[in-house]
Amino acid sequence: MPAHPAPLLLVRYRLALGDGESGESRALRLACEQTSELSPDLVPASAQPFLGRVLSVESAESGAALATIALPAEAARGDLAQLLVLLYGNASLQPGVRVESIEWPAEVLAQYPGPAFGISGLRELAGVRGRRALLCGAAKPLGLSSSQLADRVEALARGGADLIKDDHGISNPPSSPFAERVARCQEAVHRANQATGGSSLYVPNLAGPAAGWAGRIERLREVGCRAALVAPLALGLESVREIAASSSLALLAHPALAGSFFAADRPSQGIAPEILLGDLFRLAGCDAVIYPHQGGRFPFPAARSAALSEHLRGPLGHLRPAFPVPAGGIASERVPALLQELGPDTIFLIGSALYGEPDLERATAQVAAVLREKPR
Amino acid sequence: MPAHPAPLLLVRYRLALGDGESGESRALRLACEQTSELSPDLVPASAQPFLGRVLSVESAESGAALATIALPAEAARGDLAQLLVLLYGNASLQPGVRVESIEWPAEVLAQYPGPAFGISGLRELAGVRGRRALLCGAAKPLGLSSSQLADRVEALARGGADLIKDDHGISNPPSSPFAERVARCQEAVHRANQATGGSSLYVPNLAGPAAGWAGRIERLREVGCRAALVAPLALGLESVREIAASSSLALLAHPALAGSFFAADRPSQGIAPEILLGDLFRLAGCDAVIYPHQGGRFPFPAARSAALSEHLRGPLGHLRPAFPVPAGGIASERVPALLQELGPDTIFLIGSALYGEPDLERATAQVAAVLREKPR
Repeated sequence: MPAHPAPLLLVRYRLALGDGESGESRALRLACEQTSELSPDLVPASAQPFLGRVLSVESAESGAALATIALPAEAARGDLAQLLVLLYGNASLQPGVRVESIEWPAEVLAQYPGPAFGISGLRELAGVRGRRALLCGAAKPLGLSSSQLADRVEALARGGADLIKDDHGISNPPSSPFAERVARCQEAVHRANQATGGSSLYVPNLAGPAAGWAGRIERLREVGCRAALVAPLALGLESVREIAASSSLALLAHPALAGSFFAADRPSQGIAPEILLGDLFRLAGCDAVIYPHQGGRFPFPAARSAALSEHLRGPLGHLRPAFPVPAGGIASERVPALLQELGPDTIFLIGSALYGEPDLERATAQVAAVLREKPR
Repeated sequence: MPAHPAPLLLVRYRLALGDGESGESRALRLACEQTSELSPDLVPASAQPFLGRVLSVESAESGAALATIALPAEAARGDLAQLLVLLYGNASLQPGVRVESIEWPAEVLAQYPGPAFGISGLRELAGVRGRRALLCGAAKPLGLSSSQLADRVEALARGGADLIKDDHGISNPPSSPFAERVARCQEAVHRANQATGGSSLYVPNLAGPAAGWAGRIERLREVGCRAALVAPLALGLESVREIAASSSLALLAHPALAGSFFAADRPSQGIAPEILLGDLFRLAGCDAVIYPHQGGRFPFPAARSAALSEHLRGPLGHLRPAFPVPAGGIASERVPALLQELGPDTIFLIGSALYGEPDLERATAQVAAVLREKPR
């Protein structure tokens, strides 16, 4: 049998087993499904090297197995959309398959530039000296006019938010059209920065019809924006990779739709959050990744949060580390404890909590002060 | 309170209820999550029109409710990626939310051209006269050379397959690089058509890095391809819409990754298949949509299959109807019964089953004959 084509992705899957099915046979079925879509006896010898190969199978909790399958990475060379298909495309349509971890060969990582800014580059863009955690506020809600949103952006910037993002639901509504809004909000941040001597960074939502991406990126350049919010699972990982590679914008990734892949109530299905929001978003070039931290409006297990931070910040070939951005209903008073838990290479996204306070600027300043304190 | 901005999307959600939570309060929480991301009392009067509004709530099975929520469609004007975010972006991160149905206002449908070919246009491209069902074969497996794949394409075409698609896992592997493969396979189909007087249509897989889409579409034009396979959830719905609008290619959609949104074992979560693969893929301009029909390798409830066919072929504003393409391990001998069940506006995708036979051309011809028979 011809040798496997290098490089190989070693993917660890958790597999729910059907009645009387062995882990080995389930793993083989998956290995075929994700590559040849033919049973192995129908795969001609010359195509055998591209057939997924089961390297090991262990039993896991009752009725499940953990299998490591070698997949031919060249089937998706330099293409994150195709890589997602290789990992989980048809598998998604079968119950009880979950991608738990991936060993990334150096040759595969070398195909992806990764974050153009990363943690240190994004700190620099936001004018943050020293290794402290950052505060991100949100311009909201949908339905306000561009100037109303700009007022809020200005208050957040004056209060000391390092980044201020659009809500991911605010794209190009009639109340605050994209071209107008990004100009107003960028001016507002600039005004605040002039007044405070700060360098808050406005992060507009780069959504909108595909045909207009180039124009909208040009508009962001025109008005002086240096960063953008993107929703990789809505836009497509490849589109985001392309934007990261060509726009010179730092990218803050939103996890919209991600729950489809890793519902907390279905640990036997999907793609582990640290792989999807961690490895894959980082390969797509996201400099910071928003995720729902536990204790807010979204269930997200603490262990997964720790793993995600590790996957975003830890070694991954030549790729720059990316910021984890805990979010999803974090109350301001939790920030000190979360800072202890997550450390300084973190961006805290405090959205709605600041709007519950009577004075947006002051509420922001109070949280910002916590992050600027010298460590005791 | 200012009037809601027209048009409104009326979305019916199935909501799992927490302990002691009422359907009304859960629905209101969701309506806020998907629009303002603020509790209603924090939404300024001028933004209230864009706040999702709960129109009705009924109790469903125990512990669940069915709620109809009005969402401001203008928040996602002409942008399918943003529309997906509006429908289910953050909701995906909360357990027990499922999009069950959508009432599409005419103004929203008017923003999307839909399938450029549709059922009658695709029949015409494939030279099919009369209202009969079509047969689609698959060039596989991954790992064969371009000329080996072309041989298989030729056999399928000689056997009378109306369409022959690449496997969705075959994009640009070293064994059959895109530019070479599409030329070889297109030549093979042409040769077969010359010999048989038929007009089989080769449908190459249009994947690959985002930066190269324009070049690959140009390559398809060069070699004479008129159709392409796309995986909308991997590429992004907006990218596919853009390809449909600008490429002049008929699009066959693959459901890779779709199971993340509607696992058969989790009916309380996600987006109903007939909405995702039906309404949304059709809005993206897909002329035919592959789905896993029950009885093959993937579980897919019969009722959902019927609903999906209805959503692809039934009235949807001005949009042309699209073909349902049952697939996923359909055995040749099931075709007569499936034809009875699904009717002539169907494309049967018979992939691996034909490769289990000793003679690919003859096996194809046997199935093709069933579809070409005059109705008895």
